[in-house]
Amino acid sequence: MTITNYTQLALMITLVLSIVSSATAQESNPGALAPVQLHLMPMPAVVQRQPGRLNINSSFNVTTKGFADDRLRRSITRMIGRLAGQTVMTLQFEPASDEGTATLLIECAGAGSAIPLLSEDESYSLEITDKQARLKAATVVGALRGLETFLQLLEGDRTGFYFPAVRIQDQPRFPWRGLLIDVARHYQPPEVLKRNLDAMAAVKLNVLHWHLTEDQGFRVESKKYPKLHSLGSDGQFYSQDQVRDIIAYAADRGIRVMPEFDIPGHATSWLVGHPELGSAPGPYKIERGAGIFEPALDPTREDTYKFLDTFFGEMAALFPDAYMHIGGDENEGKQWDRNPQIQAFMKEKDIKDNHALQAYFNQRVLKILQKHHKKMIGWEEILHPNLPKDAVIQSWRGAASLAEAARKGYNGILSAGYYIDLIFPASQHYLADPIPQNTTLTAAEASHVLGGEATMWSEWVSPETIDSRIWPRTAAIAERLWSPRQVSDIDDMYRRLSVISRQLEELGLTHEKNYNMMLRRLANGQDIAPLRTLASVIEPVKEYRRYQMRPQTMLSPLTGLIDAARPDSEAARQFASYVDGFLSDAPRLALYQPNLDVILRDWQTAGRALGPMIDQSPALLEARPLANDLSAIAAAGLEALSYLSTGNPATMQWRDAQLAKLDEAAKPKAALEFAIITSVRKLVNAAAEPPRTRANLSEPKK
Amino acid sequence: MTITNYTQLALMITLVLSIVSSATAQESNPGALAPVQLHLMPMPAVVQRQPGRLNINSSFNVTTKGFADDRLRRSITRMIGRLAGQTVMTLQFEPASDEGTATLLIECAGAGSAIPLLSEDESYSLEITDKQARLKAATVVGALRGLETFLQLLEGDRTGFYFPAVRIQDQPRFPWRGLLIDVARHYQPPEVLKRNLDAMAAVKLNVLHWHLTEDQGFRVESKKYPKLHSLGSDGQFYSQDQVRDIIAYAADRGIRVMPEFDIPGHATSWLVGHPELGSAPGPYKIERGAGIFEPALDPTREDTYKFLDTFFGEMAALFPDAYMHIGGDENEGKQWDRNPQIQAFMKEKDIKDNHALQAYFNQRVLKILQKHHKKMIGWEEILHPNLPKDAVIQSWRGAASLAEAARKGYNGILSAGYYIDLIFPASQHYLADPIPQNTTLTAAEASHVLGGEATMWSEWVSPETIDSRIWPRTAAIAERLWSPRQVSDIDDMYRRLSVISRQLEELGLTHEKNYNMMLRRLANGQDIAPLRTLASVIEPVKEYRRYQMRPQTMLSPLTGLIDAARPDSEAARQFASYVDGFLSDAPRLALYQPNLDVILRDWQTAGRALGPMIDQSPALLEARPLANDLSAIAAAGLEALSYLSTGNPATMQWRDAQLAKLDEAAKPKAALEFAIITSVRKLVNAAAEPPRTRANLSEPKK
Repeated sequence: MTITNYTQLALMITLVLSIVSSATAQESNPGALAPVQLHLMPMPAVVQRQPGRLNINSSFNVTTKGFADDRLRRSITRMIGRLAGQTVMTLQFEPASDEGTATLLIECAGAGSAIPLLSEDESYSLEITDKQARLKAATVVGALRGLETFLQLLEGDRTGFYFPAVRIQDQPRFPWRGLLIDVARHYQPPEVLKRNLDAMAAVKLNVLHWHLTEDQGFRVESKKYPKLHSLGSDGQFYSQDQVRDIIAYAADRGIRVMPEFDIPGHATSWLVGHPELGSAPGPYKIERGAGIFEPALDPTREDTYKFLDTFFGEMAALFPDAYMHIGGDENEGKQWDRNPQIQAFMKEKDIKDNHALQAYFNQRVLKILQKHHKKMIGWEEILHPNLPKDAVIQSWRGAASLAEAARKGYNGILSAGYYIDLIFPASQHYLADPIPQNTTLTAAEASHVLGGEATMWSEWVSPETIDSRIWPRTAAIAERLWSPRQVSDIDDMYRRLSVISRQLEELGLTHEKNYNMMLRRLANGQDIAPLRTLASVIEPVKEYRRYQMRPQTMLSPLTGLIDAARPDSEAARQFASYVDGFLSDAPRLALYQPNLDVILRDWQTAGRALGPMIDQSPALLEARPLANDLSAIAAAGLEALSYLSTGNPATMQWRDAQLAKLDEAAKPKAALEFAIITSVRKLVNAAAEPPRTRANLSEPKK
Repeated sequence: MTITNYTQLALMITLVLSIVSSATAQESNPGALAPVQLHLMPMPAVVQRQPGRLNINSSFNVTTKGFADDRLRRSITRMIGRLAGQTVMTLQFEPASDEGTATLLIECAGAGSAIPLLSEDESYSLEITDKQARLKAATVVGALRGLETFLQLLEGDRTGFYFPAVRIQDQPRFPWRGLLIDVARHYQPPEVLKRNLDAMAAVKLNVLHWHLTEDQGFRVESKKYPKLHSLGSDGQFYSQDQVRDIIAYAADRGIRVMPEFDIPGHATSWLVGHPELGSAPGPYKIERGAGIFEPALDPTREDTYKFLDTFFGEMAALFPDAYMHIGGDENEGKQWDRNPQIQAFMKEKDIKDNHALQAYFNQRVLKILQKHHKKMIGWEEILHPNLPKDAVIQSWRGAASLAEAARKGYNGILSAGYYIDLIFPASQHYLADPIPQNTTLTAAEASHVLGGEATMWSEWVSPETIDSRIWPRTAAIAERLWSPRQVSDIDDMYRRLSVISRQLEELGLTHEKNYNMMLRRLANGQDIAPLRTLASVIEPVKEYRRYQMRPQTMLSPLTGLIDAARPDSEAARQFASYVDGFLSDAPRLALYQPNLDVILRDWQTAGRALGPMIDQSPALLEARPLANDLSAIAAAGLEALSYLSTGNPATMQWRDAQLAKLDEAAKPKAALEFAIITSVRKLVNAAAEPPRTRANLSEPKK
């Protein structure tokens, strides 16, 4: 048996890769001075590298000049704690006594709003010289944003830790940069929200859209109507104290907390305790399935509005944000169609269809919200000729509705393109722009586009997996919403994303560390290496196919291979770049050949090892066809590599046989699919080409 | 370069090892039927394997017969959720309608106490046949214990998941089986306590000893004296609502929550807000160092007792447990010596020394606790001739004080031997017995020994690292306190411990998953493989040497290599067993040779790779001497292996030179030490012996 030298080989690959990637990335970041690359995300509006560096040792300290309050002081304490954690240095938490000698001087002009506003000034400037770092901001929230940039600038080398000298001038492109977390399909405890708020702050997101009610759960305590949460939540709800605690935690990080109470549809859980609000007699049970359900509030009864007035009054006092989201999506009105009283009401009021009836409902709800001094926001379905202009539209089915709303003078935010629950890669979300380059909106119309929100719908996420569905991809969306439109180089985004992803771990995010843990559980005590190899090159199926291919309920465990596997396979991206590099090197084909060989043999070894492993782990039974596919893919790739290395082209029969095998392997199994098929196809196709034409087979990366 | 085949090799090693270990373990578990070994911890009092198995599929269900309450129903729901998580099956949470066909039938005779008592009946029996599992218990707490055993029995193979047929009759050896968590030196948020309560329940521990106050922090809200927590905690304290929530969470798992308010010493944080209680005028600041500090309550002023009466009255209402811990340890009385009023008081009352003055104080405090219907418990220093017999002694400096207390008729619990903060291996704690085989106590005296407690003192643990200091080692202590004394086979304990350790992850414990995370942070974006190899064979220095060798404060980051490294190196244990197996195979020396070769070369590779890695990661600077040592250890081991494999003995000069190198490597650096030196010494010594005598060099494992 040969001697294992895995570590060394892995290091060699890393080294080769880093040389290549740093060359390409420098080009896309013209402000950077070689050899240090900055890892900022979102990229600030203006970054200028300067010569020099600010060295960091345990005498690092901070002071403020001008305005300072407890929120700013707490944020400085957190920043110092994180810097200490990264550098393993005991740092001083007490403010420096001398502005001139403080390592970091923060000049803040004023408090800004204690409860963050949409209109908050988040701009800041940061100048680092070899003497001092100076952060200036108009508000504490601006200073918070600058402190995150400051931490992202930390570098280390043989001589120690330092901050590279820079001049940064920064402000967001859009004022509304949100993350929706659906805590209704699967409840997420407060600590999950808190660590995600930390992560949001790290990438300068500023709105937590808290999707609190659904068919599957009513998650907030109502003291006015306690049956809402006590009967509608399986005991899994936030007490009002916990809500206040989350809001304070978010405000400390300059993040608004906007609640959503989704009505009139998506409201089964309301009706468990209050069937009298429904459009059918009930009784109702908490919904355990996924999809669109019939129950809807009865928009024709005055008691419904009395109830909502009291309820929204209570919630308006609990949630200080200026906006309240009333959902309004996906109500098909089937209960309305079948209810004679509702039909009579529509006839009497000359309401011609369910859309109009919902518009009537929205008008009534809007008045209630206005009474309680809240602005209304809803999903794009609420857009209706009678909708007042101060309502905000959240576009989810396509960017067209956002543009339509803007043209009609409505403010809007974009979520179409940012549905992170659909398992698309970060690159795809990254290119979705609320105001794309080719927009037909006038400047005045475009000013109605406030920003966007990533949406973490929670049908298939648990507290254990939710971070891996949100992060790191949401950081790319955060950049799209903060940074200038022209910051759009995908390779450079991924380069920085991998650094930010590690930094998010420091804040307690579990997207990386729960991965091996979940594989260990599935492996039932066996070595996880072969399983990790498999999991690293597969992804859950996209869009809504998971539920179609592998039906579950809200009470099902989310501990399967599909839950451990993650979106946007990094291993597949890396393999693709090796394949492209390899083929673009034709006819020499030496570059990346060893890397590809190592990877393909690892797949081959894993494919063989997985069979006996699955025998001992019944929880992995559904992975058996994937293990077989992995072996087939590896075999095809290795044979192709062998043809290419020896210079003898393969036959067309061989090629067609391999492509057929790859087509089989490309079919999803257990709702999982390989992310490496395209790259192996390239190898197979190239292997059957005459040497001269191979170079053309590798398409340049976009 | 050779082809990497790491995965396959690792699997082969695992396979070889499992054959060997299962052979030895069968002997120590005579009730087991080959080939399935049980992974129970703590081992039940009586386990009889039966032929047959109860297969598990998605029709698994549970019902109760006789008594059932919400606590039992919640525990069943949790158990089904965990079973679903492990099997990746959608299981039914609704009770089965038919006792006869339910997969698991639970027969509980009564509720037991809603607030767990020391006298709680925790016994249960569990019989599993191929038709049904039947769990019987006198109380709900007994049923909870049985449900944990049930979950530990889950097995899987090619045909699916199943429970092996068994008959188990079980009850604890000791009624007091605790874990002390010091939340004062480093605050631990409620979720840390909750996940540790889950883990405690999993291994049948039943007391959370909540060490709430210290020189470094006062961690509980007092509404009577709010300056205690508001000035003594840096804002890091538990609200009374949070305390009630933790107590309810623990009670749900059959766990008592006993608070400790450490007085009269260890009390600096009390004096920050209430300097008038101190024995010197103050002002006082929260202590940031580690060690023993001078501040102590003034035992001579009546106002002190009035204060304590009010305070303990408030706490007695908040904490329902029958016991209240008043600390009483490590008060050196230096403030007392210097205070003329205190000296005058002692003279007047004929109190001859500080120990007697503290005894006077304890008597007064005891009366206050009695007034509030609490039993007093304190550290062994409180043992004094005048101490009433209903006080309980916690022995920490040695088991002798426990025996002395028992002889004098005091109840006591053992913590000496269970100081998990001192980084000793589980095997050492495992052999510490509250009533050892050779005890000189009579049966009546021995009945005063109530049990024991592991102590997680928190000078050097953060929420990120605390689980790795508690688990899995505390599971071995839990077994010592629950299982019959004769269950003491260390190899079998470790075999089961590694399984239990993985199961604890499922409950949210972070001892395993934070390991790689911390290494990633230290690696600053580089491949962690070499660092992981190093970290896997080093351990933090034992006892109190960490602070001596690498001083820090309570505000220092706990993110260094010493914090990532863990006690009781599993890699070192495995290496030791290979070395022993290898040498016991002399003169053939074929057994384990490939395993040793792989491991030693991995060390060699890692040692080489670490140098350049440290250059890029200033946080790893302190690891440089360790990296050099690792290379030297690997070189010595590889050379020894080469001599042994070829059959030519090495020279004495070579041996002495290697041993000198190993002596150098054995010196701690960065407060870390190698756990593999002894094994490599064995190889080096053996290499220089004539072939005939080598077999004797390997001492049989105890």
